[in-house]
Amino acid sequence: MPVVRIEMWEGRTEKQKEKLIKNITKIFEEIGVKPDHLTIIIHDIPKSNWGMRGEQASKISH
Amino acid sequence: MPVVRIEMWEGRTEKQKEKLIKNITKIFEEIGVKPDHLTIIIHDIPKSNWGMRGEQASKISH
Amino acid sequence: MPVVRIEMWEGRTEKQKEKLIKNITKIFEEIGVKPDHLTIIIHDIPKSNWGMRGEQASKISH
Amino acid sequence: MPVVRIEMWEGRTEKQKEKLIKNITKIFEEIGVKPDHLTIIIHDIPKSNWGMRGEQASKISH
Amino acid sequence: MPVVRIEMWEGRTEKQKEKLIKNITKIFEEIGVKPDHLTIIIHDIPKSNWGMRGEQASKISH
Amino acid sequence: MPVVRIEMWEGRTEKQKEKLIKNITKIFEEIGVKPDHLTIIIHDIPKSNWGMRGEQASKISH
Repeated sequence: MPVVRIEMWEGRTEKQKEKLIKNITKIFEEIGVKPDHLTIIIHDIPKSNWGMRGEQASKISH
Repeated sequence: MPVVRIEMWEGRTEKQKEKLIKNITKIFEEIGVKPDHLTIIIHDIPKSNWGMRGEQASKISH
Repeated sequence: MPVVRIEMWEGRTEKQKEKLIKNITKIFEEIGVKPDHLTIIIHDIPKSNWGMRGEQASKISH
Repeated sequence: MPVVRIEMWEGRTEKQKEKLIKNITKIFEEIGVKPDHLTIIIHDIPKSNWGMRGEQASKISH
Repeated sequence: MPVVRIEMWEGRTEKQKEKLIKNITKIFEEIGVKPDHLTIIIHDIPKSNWGMRGEQASKISH
Repeated sequence: MPVVRIEMWEGRTEKQKEKLIKNITKIFEEIGVKPDHLTIIIHDIPKSNWGMRGEQASKISH
């Protein structure tokens, strides 16, 4: 029944989200969790709402 | 002082959210929590950000 | 498929948790969510880990 | 490595978010956490998704 | 910089947690996230704090 | 009304938690949030439940 919550910068493609969901589900299967029993929730976070090194990620050049 | 967080698919009406908030508050009152002391936060999640059965909920026909 | 997370002070009885879970499930049924599709997760938080009015709740006389 | 998550009503300015991130980072530095090791995530919540006193905050006159 | 939070029933072994962390990190690498930039946090939840089908999971025979 | 949630390794002292709560409350006051309207919740996470660089933090020498 695990619930997995992912917070990451907005901008990931549908393809990448699909891949994350599919592969995380597989990993949980390997420790005995059925795909039916897993919920994965993705929160897309704007970079201006993400703080790292004391600044908004939107203001950091990576 | 409890904090209740609800994550659900986007698309719920204002009426439904109002009802959820009113009724959850009542339930907590029944166990001794005053309405003033309860915070409820709803996160509307796009179906493409919701994983179930290894897929995005947006790709599953319900 | 909603996921409900409750954070509250530790100390609630099994009976109270049972009641919360049963009644919150009913409320979601009223807006069309089947009991099978609802997950409720309770986090018991020590009062010393709960901040309100600028202090740990453990140091406030209620 | 702490992770700080802030949920608050939408409407805060970039300036206010910048200030929150900068100052929270300083506070953690004071207890020994390097700015590099702190992640802060802000969730802007619409008032209609925020329940207090049994109502949506959008319907309460403050 | 993603943050992944897992809530699951308590009782998982160290070995299983190690595996989850290692493999989830790999999945994020495949979409371009460096292991250094990923944080994974596991919350072990007692079954009596987990509600499903309107009941505490501790009272359901699986 | 903001809600602040902190997840950090267990082991912080009462003194440090008190300081975090007091100072974070001050920061929010500076952007107009009254101490009465702020809730701070700390989750102490065992290092074996914390994943970084693909490993449990309990297995990394810092």
